[in-house]
Amino acid sequence: MARIAYLGPEGTFTEAALLQISAAGLIPANAAETVERIPVESTPAALDAVRAGSADYACVPIENSIDGSLAQTLDSLAIGSPLQVFAETTLDVAFSIVVRAGYAAADVRTVAAFPVAAAQVRRWLTAHLPDVELCPAYSNADAARQVADGQVDAAVTSPLAAKHWSLDTLAEGVVDENNARTRFVLIGLPGPPPPRTGADRTSAVLRIDNKPGALVEALTEFGMRGIDLTRIESRPTRTELGTYMFFVDCNGHIDDYAVAEALKALHRRCADVRYLGSWPTGAAPDPNSPVPPPPDTAESWLERLRKGQADAVAGP
Amino acid sequence: MARIAYLGPEGTFTEAALLQISAAGLIPANAAETVERIPVESTPAALDAVRAGSADYACVPIENSIDGSLAQTLDSLAIGSPLQVFAETTLDVAFSIVVRAGYAAADVRTVAAFPVAAAQVRRWLTAHLPDVELCPAYSNADAARQVADGQVDAAVTSPLAAKHWSLDTLAEGVVDENNARTRFVLIGLPGPPPPRTGADRTSAVLRIDNKPGALVEALTEFGMRGIDLTRIESRPTRTELGTYMFFVDCNGHIDDYAVAEALKALHRRCADVRYLGSWPTGAAPDPNSPVPPPPDTAESWLERLRKGQADAVAGP
Amino acid sequence: MARIAYLGPEGTFTEAALLQISAAGLIPANAAETVERIPVESTPAALDAVRAGSADYACVPIENSIDGSLAQTLDSLAIGSPLQVFAETTLDVAFSIVVRAGYAAADVRTVAAFPVAAAQVRRWLTAHLPDVELCPAYSNADAARQVADGQVDAAVTSPLAAKHWSLDTLAEGVVDENNARTRFVLIGLPGPPPPRTGADRTSAVLRIDNKPGALVEALTEFGMRGIDLTRIESRPTRTELGTYMFFVDCNGHIDDYAVAEALKALHRRCADVRYLGSWPTGAAPDPNSPVPPPPDTAESWLERLRKGQADAVAGP
Amino acid sequence: MARIAYLGPEGTFTEAALLQISAAGLIPANAAETVERIPVESTPAALDAVRAGSADYACVPIENSIDGSLAQTLDSLAIGSPLQVFAETTLDVAFSIVVRAGYAAADVRTVAAFPVAAAQVRRWLTAHLPDVELCPAYSNADAARQVADGQVDAAVTSPLAAKHWSLDTLAEGVVDENNARTRFVLIGLPGPPPPRTGADRTSAVLRIDNKPGALVEALTEFGMRGIDLTRIESRPTRTELGTYMFFVDCNGHIDDYAVAEALKALHRRCADVRYLGSWPTGAAPDPNSPVPPPPDTAESWLERLRKGQADAVAGP
Repeated sequence: MARIAYLGPEGTFTEAALLQISAAGLIPANAAETVERIPVESTPAALDAVRAGSADYACVPIENSIDGSLAQTLDSLAIGSPLQVFAETTLDVAFSIVVRAGYAAADVRTVAAFPVAAAQVRRWLTAHLPDVELCPAYSNADAARQVADGQVDAAVTSPLAAKHWSLDTLAEGVVDENNARTRFVLIGLPGPPPPRTGADRTSAVLRIDNKPGALVEALTEFGMRGIDLTRIESRPTRTELGTYMFFVDCNGHIDDYAVAEALKALHRRCADVRYLGSWPTGAAPDPNSPVPPPPDTAESWLERLRKGQADAVAGP
Repeated sequence: MARIAYLGPEGTFTEAALLQISAAGLIPANAAETVERIPVESTPAALDAVRAGSADYACVPIENSIDGSLAQTLDSLAIGSPLQVFAETTLDVAFSIVVRAGYAAADVRTVAAFPVAAAQVRRWLTAHLPDVELCPAYSNADAARQVADGQVDAAVTSPLAAKHWSLDTLAEGVVDENNARTRFVLIGLPGPPPPRTGADRTSAVLRIDNKPGALVEALTEFGMRGIDLTRIESRPTRTELGTYMFFVDCNGHIDDYAVAEALKALHRRCADVRYLGSWPTGAAPDPNSPVPPPPDTAESWLERLRKGQADAVAGP
Repeated sequence: MARIAYLGPEGTFTEAALLQISAAGLIPANAAETVERIPVESTPAALDAVRAGSADYACVPIENSIDGSLAQTLDSLAIGSPLQVFAETTLDVAFSIVVRAGYAAADVRTVAAFPVAAAQVRRWLTAHLPDVELCPAYSNADAARQVADGQVDAAVTSPLAAKHWSLDTLAEGVVDENNARTRFVLIGLPGPPPPRTGADRTSAVLRIDNKPGALVEALTEFGMRGIDLTRIESRPTRTELGTYMFFVDCNGHIDDYAVAEALKALHRRCADVRYLGSWPTGAAPDPNSPVPPPPDTAESWLERLRKGQADAVAGP
Repeated sequence: MARIAYLGPEGTFTEAALLQISAAGLIPANAAETVERIPVESTPAALDAVRAGSADYACVPIENSIDGSLAQTLDSLAIGSPLQVFAETTLDVAFSIVVRAGYAAADVRTVAAFPVAAAQVRRWLTAHLPDVELCPAYSNADAARQVADGQVDAAVTSPLAAKHWSLDTLAEGVVDENNARTRFVLIGLPGPPPPRTGADRTSAVLRIDNKPGALVEALTEFGMRGIDLTRIESRPTRTELGTYMFFVDCNGHIDDYAVAEALKALHRRCADVRYLGSWPTGAAPDPNSPVPPPPDTAESWLERLRKGQADAVAGP
C-alpha cells in the first residue's frame, strides 16, 4: 500500500491530480496496489512527510500552481535530504462556482476564494456576480468547506471539492484565461527511476559558482548533445551568498546516453548537481528525443582505440 | 508630480519599497519632485494603471515576493503593451506581529495573515502563539486592517502597516528563514533608460521557437560577450502552443556595447525580444562589468577596413 | 596598367592562373585595362614586389599548391606590412609531359621535374617512362626550359610552359590523383574590397593568446552567426613563443552584417586580427550565405530602445 | 629489432630526428632494442613501408618541414589503412654549408640545395656566396652527395649528411630566420598508445559534413572540456566533394577522461574520426592538463543515481 501525502483538505486540485496519477498506473509498482491519501496543510508539509517516513510519496504542484506556490515546491526539493520525482500529470485549470443547496446567483452575497484562484476568475466574477464580497480561503477546498459550513454563500473551488462537499454547482469550467494548466509530480525517496519510455523528462538542480558565463557553460552541456531544455528557473540560494540554484528540466531519460553524459559533465562542472529523477511524460515517444536506446557505439569504439584495434578501414 | 500605483492598501511592503525608491532619488527626474502614491488591489492592476495612463509609474515586487505572486508581475510585463523598468530596490523580508492596543500574546485567539506571509512565520507562530486560529487576509496590510477593524486579535504584517493603523507591535523582524529578501521595481511606459552608472541591470523577455538547443544558443549570446546572466525564468506562453518565454536579467546597460550587441543578436535570432529596461542596481560599479564606456574601437576599425585603410603595421 | 608579379619563369601554373583572373575581369577596375606580367623567382618575392611598389598586384598560389609551398604564401601575408586579397581563381592540377621536337617515349633517358610535381606523376612515370633518370628542376617552367636548352630529354611541366618553349607534348592532363586543384589569389595593398556579390569569401589572420579554449571561443564568433568557416590553418608565430596564428576563410563579405560583427568581435577578443580581404568566389550566390544585404533591422531597433520608442505591440 | 623507414638518403634531418627518438628511448618497448634504419625516397614511401610490413615504424616530418611537404605526411596519414603516432621529437632548423675537401668560399661556383632549404638560406647565400649558381637537389642529403660525387662545389645540407659524406664544413647553424623548428613523429600500425605521462599529445583526423557551423561545433567538444587545441589544419578531401578533413592536435592522452569523452562525442558527431594516437610530448607534465588521472567520480555518481542511491546530503 502506498501512503501518499497531498495538499488538502479533500477536494483540492492536488487530490484530483493524485487520483489521475493513480488511475494512470504511474505509482511505482511495488507501492501501487492500494493508495492511502493523506491530506496535509501545505506542499512543504507533504514533502516533509516523505522525508520523515510518514508517507511513501507526495503529490505536489510544480508548475503554474493554482493550489499554492511553486517556489515552495522547488525550494523544498532543493534543500534538505534528497527526494526524487517518479511521475507527473497535468490538469487544466478550471474552477467550479459552488453554492449552498438551493441558492441561485442572485442570492449570493459572499464568495470564498483562495487568493490565487480569485485572481484567475476575476473577470468572470465581475460579469456574473458583480456585487459580492470576496472572502479569502486557505485553499480551493477550504473555500468549498466554508460554503458547507455556512460561513459564506458561494465559493470558487475545484470540481472534486464540489463533489466532496455535495454542493450545488452554479458554473463549471470557469477561468478567465484559456489554456492555463498545472503540472503535478509524484515525489518519493531516491530510488531506481521508472524505465525509459522514449518520452521522458529528466530534472535536476544545479548549484553554480557565481562566475560570468558559468550558467551558459553549464546549459551548453545540454545543447551540445542535442538535448532540449524545457524549463529553467533560477533561485537564489539562501545559505551562501553569491550562489544560485537553477532548476532545469530536459527531455530524455538518465538511460539515454546523451542525458547521462550531460549529467556527468554537470557533476564535474558544477558546485553541486542534485538529480531530481527521470520519469515518463505520458506523451507519445518523441522521434526527436536525444538518442535511441540501442547500444551507443562510441564507448566500444574508444575501447578498441585504447587496445590499438583501429577499424580496418576508417577512411574513404 | 509622479503618480505611482502600488499594491495596497497603505502599509504594504510594496509601499515601503516605493518610499525607499523615492528617498533614493531613483524616480526619473522629470517626474520626481513630488510623488502621489496610489494604492491598487493587485500587481496587475498597478501595471494596468500605467498602461491606461491613470498612473505614471507602478512599484511592484518582481522576485521572492512576499506580497503576491511573482508570476503575475512577469506575465503582466510580458503580455500587453510594452512597459519598462526604471529603478529597483530590495527589502529584507521581516514581519511585525501586531495586536490591538492593550493585547498581550496570551490574549490572542485569532491571527490574520496573508497566506504567503503565514508560511514564512509558521515556526515562530508555533513557538510563540501555538494555539491561535489563522485567518486568511488579502495582503499583509489587509491583515493589519482586520486587527484595526476588530475582526481578529492579531496580524502578521509589515512595519509600515503597523504604523499606519497605529497598532501595538508584539514582535518585529519575525521571519523563519534568515536572508529572505524581496526585490521591487519601478515600472513606467517605455522611455530613455536612466544613464549608465557602471553597476546596471538589463532585463528582457525572449520568445524562442521550440527547437532543441534554441534556448542555449540564445543564452550563449550573453556568455560569448562576457555578460553575466543573473536571473532566468521560463514561462510557457499561453497564446501559442510549443513556445516559451524566458525572462532574463543580466549585468550591464544598453549603452555597454556588449549588452547592445547581445540585444541586437537576440533580436535577429529570437521570435521576439521585449526589452524591459536598463537601470542602476545601486551597487558599487563592478570592475568586472562587461565593458567600460570609453568608445569601442571595433566599429571604427571595421570602417577603416571597409575603406581599405588597414593599420600601418598590424602584425609583429 | 596593372603590373602583376607572379612566380616565374613564364609558363608556370601561376602565370596560367593570372591569365585566367585577367580574362575573368577580376582585376580591380582602376588597374585592369592592360596587364604587365612580371615573373619573379618565388612567391615571397612576388609579395615583396607589391610591398615595395614595384608591382601593383601579385598572383600567388594559396592552397594545394603545385608550384611551391603554401606556408610561404601564408607566412608572407601574415608578417610584414598589410596586404589584401582582391580575387581568386582555381586551376585543375594536370601536367604535360614534354619532349624535344622529334623525341618519342622510347628515346627519353632523363626527365626534369619540380620535386612537388614529380611526386604527383610518380605512378604515371613508373607506368610509361619506367627507366628514366629524374633530374630536379626549380619550377615546372624551369623543367621545360631544361628540355629547350638540351639539358634533359623530357620534362614534367605545365601546358603553358610547353607552349611557351614550343616543345612536343608526349602526354597531357597527367596526374596520379584526380580532382587535385590549386587555388590562386590576386594580392595588392589594402584598399576598398570588391563589391559584395552574394558569393564571397572573407579571410583573416587571427593571433590568439595561448589560453585553453581561446581558439574555439574565437571560432565560435563565426558559428554563432551562422557563418561557414571553409578553411582554417594554424601556424606557430615565430616571433613570440606560445602564440599561434590562425588563417581562417569564411563565406560572406565584410558588407554582410554577420561577417562585419564577427570581425568586430574578433578584433575585441584576439591579440590581433589581420583582415586579408573580401572578394568574389565566382560561384553562384549561395542562398544559405550568412545574411542578405537588405538593411539589418537590429541596429535601428536598438536605437529605438535607447530613445524609449519601443514597438507599439511587440508581444502577442 | 625495429626496422624504421625514413626519408633518405643517409644524413637527412629526418635521420637525425630518428636517432634522437631512439636515443630518448621513445621507440615502443617491444621493438626498441636495436634499430635498423631504412632510408626510402619519400615520406609517403616511408608510411607505405609500414603499411606493407617492410618496416615496423616510419620517422617522418609533420610540421614546418624542411625535408619535404607536410601535406604529404598528413594526407598519407588520413587516407589508406590506419596508422598511429607513438612518439615525437623536434629539431632546430639549421643548415651546414659544405664543400669538397680543400675548397674555400672563394672557390665555390656551384651550390646544390633542396629547393625548400635554398629558400631558408637565401639571405645567407646572398651575403656570403653571392655569385654562385644554385643547383636543385632532391633532399638535403642528396645535395651533400652531389658534392661528394664531384657534381657541384658546395651544398646546403644537414650536419648529419656533412659527417656521413666526410665533407668540409664552411659554415654551420645557417638559417635566415631564427627559431624555425621541425617536428618529426614516429608512426606505426595501430597499437596500444604509450602510457599517459601527464604531458601528452593526442591527434585525430575529423571528417565533417559540409554544414555551416559543423566545424565549430566539433571543435567545441574540446573547448567545452577545457582541452587545449594546439594545432588545426583543414584539407579538402579529394574523394568526396564538399567534405573536408581537419587535422587536430590537442593536449592530453586518451586515458584522460576529458580527451576520451571528447573523442567519443566526435565519433558520434562526425562523419568519421580517425584517431592518430596519444604520445608523450617530452615536456614537463602540464599542471593545467585537462584532468588528473585519479579515477573520475562522475561515472560512479551516475551509477548510484541509476540505482537510486543518491548522496546522503547533496545540498547545503
